[in-house]
Amino acid sequence: MISASENTLKVAQQAFTHFQHGLATGAWQGFLDMLTEDFTFWFPLGKFHGWNQGKARAEEFFQYVSASFKNGLTLNLDRLTSNETTVIFEFRDEGTLLEKAYRNRVAVAFDVRGDKICGYREYFGSDGISS
Amino acid sequence: MISASENTLKVAQQAFTHFQHGLATGAWQGFLDMLTEDFTFWFPLGKFHGWNQGKARAEEFFQYVSASFKNGLTLNLDRLTSNETTVIFEFRDEGTLLEKAYRNRVAVAFDVRGDKICGYREYFGSDGISS
Repeated sequence: MISASENTLKVAQQAFTHFQHGLATGAWQGFLDMLTEDFTFWFPLGKFHGWNQGKARAEEFFQYVSASFKNGLTLNLDRLTSNETTVIFEFRDEGTLLEKAYRNRVAVAFDVRGDKICGYREYFGSDGISS
Repeated sequence: MISASENTLKVAQQAFTHFQHGLATGAWQGFLDMLTEDFTFWFPLGKFHGWNQGKARAEEFFQYVSASFKNGLTLNLDRLTSNETTVIFEFRDEGTLLEKAYRNRVAVAFDVRGDKICGYREYFGSDGISS
């Protein structure tokens, strides 16, 4: 029997692996399979700015991300902070956006329920130019 | 004897209270007293974008923040995630910037060493207009 904190960490890390794969390749099914039906996510800017509800909306969002970064995004995880319900990943990412080099720092919080992710909040730590 | 995680949480919460007071009033001494001499901080944008080193630079930064938000910033803490070394606060803030209403979402990571804060990383979750 593992503790709530250990389960949360395990589930979030698994989801993060799928997330990383999705960003790199555009293949999101593994990540989407780990979301609860009532999944909510917060995004800082643009078309998906604010609270977004549901798995269908999440699918639309992650496809939009991959359409924007046609050659994928590469992640470097700097740090992970977690408790019983939430894991926050701090990472740098890089890729190409509209034919220009893109680099950012990001903090993403995953809320875990059981063996799924029920919440996601994204925060930007840089400007898309340097990290 | 309290555990490393408990100490980290206690120290970070104390620092966060001073941080909140600094943002509200412009009085930063309580917060600055809690920083290590080799304190480093990361800020996402503008004049202080990137890594900044040292307590003197921190003082300059927080005075700059208070000069920008002349009537102070009010914080609403939404969530706190912590481990043995780091506490991440997710909050919304509001105030007035250049005579316009300002609202944002923020994640701030405090790294703790002993009874001080040795690292600070800030991430923006919104656009300064809505939260």
